[in-house]
Amino acid sequence: MRRVREPQQDRSRLTRQRLLEATVDCLAELGWSATTVAVVAKRAGVSRGATQHHFPTREDLITASLDYMFDSRMESVRLEATGLPPGPGRTEAVVSRLVDHYTGTLFKAALQVWTAAAADPVLRARVLPLEDKFGRVAHRTTVALLGVDEGDPVAHRWVQLTLDLARGLGLADVLTDDSVRRAEIVRQWAATLEMVLEQPALGATQRS
Amino acid sequence: MRRVREPQQDRSRLTRQRLLEATVDCLAELGWSATTVAVVAKRAGVSRGATQHHFPTREDLITASLDYMFDSRMESVRLEATGLPPGPGRTEAVVSRLVDHYTGTLFKAALQVWTAAAADPVLRARVLPLEDKFGRVAHRTTVALLGVDEGDPVAHRWVQLTLDLARGLGLADVLTDDSVRRAEIVRQWAATLEMVLEQPALGATQRS
Repeated sequence: MRRVREPQQDRSRLTRQRLLEATVDCLAELGWSATTVAVVAKRAGVSRGATQHHFPTREDLITASLDYMFDSRMESVRLEATGLPPGPGRTEAVVSRLVDHYTGTLFKAALQVWTAAAADPVLRARVLPLEDKFGRVAHRTTVALLGVDEGDPVAHRWVQLTLDLARGLGLADVLTDDSVRRAEIVRQWAATLEMVLEQPALGATQRS
Repeated sequence: MRRVREPQQDRSRLTRQRLLEATVDCLAELGWSATTVAVVAKRAGVSRGATQHHFPTREDLITASLDYMFDSRMESVRLEATGLPPGPGRTEAVVSRLVDHYTGTLFKAALQVWTAAAADPVLRARVLPLEDKFGRVAHRTTVALLGVDEGDPVAHRWVQLTLDLARGLGLADVLTDDSVRRAEIVRQWAATLEMVLEQPALGATQRS
């Protein structure tokens, strides 16, 4: 049965969404300090009163915006990857989409918030549950996209390595356009992943 | 012939060093906004006048502090690694020291500055030459410590992957102590590096 939405409810939902998107854009573009509720409300074309109705505090607005954008971006990564054919090229396409996620606007916005939280215990307490969720969902999504056996501890670590690497590539793209170098790194990494995930004995190589 | 230093010169050098170290500590602990010249001068126990004599602007102080600490940390990494015996365990020890560098106070301080520079074109212009230098020196140091053939483009990319990964591990340690997970990742990565650097054909695996 389709839910019938009141126009009022739709408007409210759209207002909320505009505020969340404007917040992420402001953080990525203007940075932590300049992303005030007033600046976001103005960019979203929403009154201060309506903004405070949706998000009573600046921290509410900022954490909700990262949470919303993360869900929305992960959904896109999943949808794009679902459309990829199996076979050669698939691993590189999956890694490439994941890494795109870590070099996009959401990563740049989150970096502003994480960095501010590093020196602000109250904000840190708000951000930790997000870090936990983002880590778990990104891991689960990568496991699914690469078709990795979750029960295998070595495969588990290769997924972690992939996400740690993606994070590092995101950081290398903050001040300069690193896309040309990054494309080579992604290609080499995808080739390595294919090798170790298809030949578990290689991936498990441990000195000890 | 040993240079004879005037006591006055020594004092000036020590004052400068105290200011640079206090700046890095303040950035890592208090964050970008709270790291003012006044706060740093107070922590270093140096007068405002003497501070401004050494560093006319806040940006001078901050960029000089990162540059100084980077040189000093890279020198430590090199010295520690020079003392490591060859043979099994060396690669893991080298990777472990590199990664320690990316999870230490300097990385946390630099993250504050990079993140601020992302939203501040004037600061960004000051930081870009540092980013360039840090990238080149870290790469050269890693090449030397791992004993990699610089002329081999595949080995070159493995060194880049190692540094991208180290940067990602640094970011994963900003809000929480990630050291237990990180030790496993470092172990797996060191084993992989040994495998691909000793058997170039494996490391070169490319789908194309």
